[in-house]
Amino acid sequence: MPNAFRHSLRVRFHECDPQGIVFNANFLAYADIAMTELYRDGFGSWKAVTDQGLDMFVAEANVRYVTPLHFDEEVELLATVTRIGKTATTTVIRVERGDALVAEITIHHVFFDLETRSKAPIPDFVRTGLERYVVG
Amino acid sequence: MPNAFRHSLRVRFHECDPQGIVFNANFLAYADIAMTELYRDGFGSWKAVTDQGLDMFVAEANVRYVTPLHFDEEVELLATVTRIGKTATTTVIRVERGDALVAEITIHHVFFDLETRSKAPIPDFVRTGLERYVVG
Amino acid sequence: MPNAFRHSLRVRFHECDPQGIVFNANFLAYADIAMTELYRDGFGSWKAVTDQGLDMFVAEANVRYVTPLHFDEEVELLATVTRIGKTATTTVIRVERGDALVAEITIHHVFFDLETRSKAPIPDFVRTGLERYVVG
Amino acid sequence: MPNAFRHSLRVRFHECDPQGIVFNANFLAYADIAMTELYRDGFGSWKAVTDQGLDMFVAEANVRYVTPLHFDEEVELLATVTRIGKTATTTVIRVERGDALVAEITIHHVFFDLETRSKAPIPDFVRTGLERYVVG
Repeated sequence: MPNAFRHSLRVRFHECDPQGIVFNANFLAYADIAMTELYRDGFGSWKAVTDQGLDMFVAEANVRYVTPLHFDEEVELLATVTRIGKTATTTVIRVERGDALVAEITIHHVFFDLETRSKAPIPDFVRTGLERYVVG
Repeated sequence: MPNAFRHSLRVRFHECDPQGIVFNANFLAYADIAMTELYRDGFGSWKAVTDQGLDMFVAEANVRYVTPLHFDEEVELLATVTRIGKTATTTVIRVERGDALVAEITIHHVFFDLETRSKAPIPDFVRTGLERYVVG
Repeated sequence: MPNAFRHSLRVRFHECDPQGIVFNANFLAYADIAMTELYRDGFGSWKAVTDQGLDMFVAEANVRYVTPLHFDEEVELLATVTRIGKTATTTVIRVERGDALVAEITIHHVFFDLETRSKAPIPDFVRTGLERYVVG
Repeated sequence: MPNAFRHSLRVRFHECDPQGIVFNANFLAYADIAMTELYRDGFGSWKAVTDQGLDMFVAEANVRYVTPLHFDEEVELLATVTRIGKTATTTVIRVERGDALVAEITIHHVFFDLETRSKAPIPDFVRTGLERYVVG
């Protein structure tokens, strides 16, 4: 994945449940962390978006769990943008532990105007910033 | 949804993020709560499964976010089982606030043997217990 | 504890860690839930405070852990107000499972003006509303 | 604090609440992260303890909140051990953002035997490993 943005993290104790593995919901929190860092790398910060009176909401998220992840393990999050539409993006985040795929998350974000609460076009600086991570 | 299992909950302050709405990952935590209560209602408890040397893992989860949910709001979780296979189930959980659909979660569970860690057939008492929530 | 406000809850799976018990930080989340319900019972809601341009921050919290708490167990939270000062309150929350004390939390809240961000006197309706839970 | 163990982290979006600041309970999660890294640095890992049939529980925790902490801010956690008894330790963790003290956490851990569930002496390798962080 040549275009993927990469961010590493280590599993925290309280992210794991009594099965001894990362609780399923926490993979969406990991995806959110990946997005924050992707935005920082791509166009400065999420704040650069809200500073323009815009924001994003998650319209849909899908997680495919491939193998369990445990306390203190280190993973790499690989994010690629698979679609940049007029008002929405689709991002795929692979969670990898070494060579093993742990999970794959697909997440759809929609941009909206903070004042009118209605959908808004993706600003140019965001579009340009995300283009380097586009695949397909 | 005549066959749906229903469980109510009230949004907790710390489940909400700086946007003032329930953080997207927490809908999977809500789904987990719904499953716990569905199992209690259907066949006693999740523990009834582990007592037989079996357990379940989440193979895939999908959340479609329809409208934001806020602190202190009350929602009803409506769970229906849309598929009971040999070793896996699919459950759909609608999160409703009054007449409004807030989110819809689809979650796939796979049963496995705690000793061998391989897939295992769904026990009869689980199958029977879940049948009352089957739709479609 | 004749004056205690009481609120029950059941331990959620994801609140427990790989030791199989409620993760220590989550007792402060339980305390927050107890405060929300105490405010509802005492003077309508936390929102009644912010509607007046005021809010509260937690200045200090202490948790004494007495016995472990497990998934699916039910506890009662017993909250008493041990001090109502000019701008601050102290609340003690006992977490009980049947006759057993699980944990005891002491939490100090300070009222502040949302505009000036400086300490503000506790409004009369809050003071009156909390008086019924005062002990000592 | 010459003897302090230092670990940095950046505040995650979902650790913040609708007030826009890190939810109070999450400071105990930060303390837990600091302990994990302190153990790694001091004597290898927490697992080195459980491998010997021992574990630790939190007996008491205190958090003093000095100034609010926001999304995306970076903090340094400075941990010092203020007491190593026969079966228990006390650790103080300062959360600092630049020159500002954000919060100070004091946490008491007790060692216990995983089989008998009763208190157990702190192993020598732990005692030796923690001594470098002792102050006072």
